Amino acid sequence: MHPGALGLTDDAAILTPPRGHSLVVTADAVVGGVHFFAGDPPGAIARKALRVNLSDLAAKGAKPAGFVLTLALPKSCGETWLKGFARGLGADAKRFQCPLLGGDTVYTPGPVTISITAFGTVPSGFMARRSGARAGDRVVVTGTIGDSALGLNLRKERGAAARWKLDRAMQRHLLARYLVPQPRNALAEALRLNASAAMDVSDGLAGDLGKLCRASGAGAEIEAARVPLSKAARAVLAADAEAMETVLTGGDDFEVVATVPQRKLKRFFAAARRAGVKVTEIGRVTAGTGARFLGADGRRLVFARASFSHF
Amino acid sequence: MHPGALGLTDDAAILTPPRGHSLVVTADAVVGGVHFFAGDPPGAIARKALRVNLSDLAAKGAKPAGFVLTLALPKSCGETWLKGFARGLGADAKRFQCPLLGGDTVYTPGPVTISITAFGTVPSGFMARRSGARAGDRVVVTGTIGDSALGLNLRKERGAAARWKLDRAMQRHLLARYLVPQPRNALAEALRLNASAAMDVSDGLAGDLGKLCRASGAGAEIEAARVPLSKAARAVLAADAEAMETVLTGGDDFEVVATVPQRKLKRFFAAARRAGVKVTEIGRVTAGTGARFLGADGRRLVFARASFSHF
Repeated sequence: MHPGALGLTDDAAILTPPRGHSLVVTADAVVGGVHFFAGDPPGAIARKALRVNLSDLAAKGAKPAGFVLTLALPKSCGETWLKGFARGLGADAKRFQCPLLGGDTVYTPGPVTISITAFGTVPSGFMARRSGARAGDRVVVTGTIGDSALGLNLRKERGAAARWKLDRAMQRHLLARYLVPQPRNALAEALRLNASAAMDVSDGLAGDLGKLCRASGAGAEIEAARVPLSKAARAVLAADAEAMETVLTGGDDFEVVATVPQRKLKRFFAAARRAGVKVTEIGRVTAGTGARFLGADGRRLVFARASFSHF
Repeated sequence: MHPGALGLTDDAAILTPPRGHSLVVTADAVVGGVHFFAGDPPGAIARKALRVNLSDLAAKGAKPAGFVLTLALPKSCGETWLKGFARGLGADAKRFQCPLLGGDTVYTPGPVTISITAFGTVPSGFMARRSGARAGDRVVVTGTIGDSALGLNLRKERGAAARWKLDRAMQRHLLARYLVPQPRNALAEALRLNASAAMDVSDGLAGDLGKLCRASGAGAEIEAARVPLSKAARAVLAADAEAMETVLTGGDDFEVVATVPQRKLKRFFAAARRAGVKVTEIGRVTAGTGARFLGADGRRLVFARASFSHF
């Protein structure tokens, strides 16, 4: 346990960043029936709640330092549920070296609601921001895009698996990607040293890249065909080309989209390889405004909505 | 706005405590229908959510540095509600010099749920803890005890005001104390410099003092007659002596209970006076275990439950 947690016996925790470092602070809440299904395994719910925050730290180039948790629980969550939740949370706290520092448990007449504030450290002045993208920089993205949104579709639409002709392994892959995100904390240092801008992809690649462009006062041109897809997502698109919109705007990816100046590109890819994180170049930053996604015919893809919203 | 908030346009905030200082971190959640009434003014709800956290910072001797917020909102909370909420929150952020640094707003099918993580700074190594009380120290408490629990009673029990023979001003006082806590941040430095142990009183004086005693490996003996009461609370007790249990165990006081070594007592009271915070000596720390409350006849008061629980 972190010494600053005071054994979880005091009213507050103590955090002191190393000399010359700052704390990066991020807060995200997840709600039963909105961000996860009430019947999901409690350990998976806990890991998702922590990992959506770890994903923000990763994108900001920060090294995890700990987290605090507030947990609002309905009466239906008994001992067994709570044990599973604590086990999942503890395993990830250890795996990502991000210890629990404190928090609060309260009753709710509503669904399980988990709010986590996570802390990371960066050398002062070196957090990766949204606002640094410059025309000519390359746009890169980690992992694969769209799996989680397709996994959610599989759970909500009976018959989707058959319609998309997915074998069991593909279904498992998409469902797992929705259930428990894979934050890219291993890439944090490479991003901090090489990215001109970065953010995590939580509300859909199209919308989030649009936000990064706005913060940077720049545009971006993306070749949709270069966006990295899993085998399962490729199978879905082969059966249903319309699903491309879900892939690019569906959200819950918890990958990182970043921009890297050309002169740093080689170094960045080498660092990503060493970190064991797959990174793909998908386009470049332009002098215009907005993130434009181009189809194979070079024409712009237009989405009904650029960004996923839970509302 | 705090420069570390990055204009609330990035994914994370940056916090750097001053050299030689540490961050004190505390997190508390409040839930509609549990910690406040759904129909309470949204500005008051916001202030309560922030102030329960400010109260923890006060008790730890920390100077407020900022907070992050996650807000889970049902569809029923529209523009007007949100404007009132933001206005109340902004007013208190300014008043307590505790700026909003970031956060997350999500949809919930349940009640309004507000989770706040608040940050304060202390010179490294000088946070007021629960664990430092020593036999012979004096036990002190701020403000008045029991008002909030009695105010909640007034709202829940039709006819309580008549039964307790309360005039309008007394009713208003108790109701206001429940609706919006008055955290004792002005006392933070006096506590940090003089208290051997301190915590905020949120779950009832009897239970919380018991926790402080356990953390300190000590006991406490309190004369119930010395516990500071408002005029309204005294009126309630005159009409209904049994209400003493509600006063001492009811919770939601958001006052500070602290222990002060005798040699620092004079300095502490002088500092409290300068800070404009009323402080009352109510008993002393003993070598035993547990917090014992003694009645006027010198016999120990026994409560059905020592600490208020929302469950």
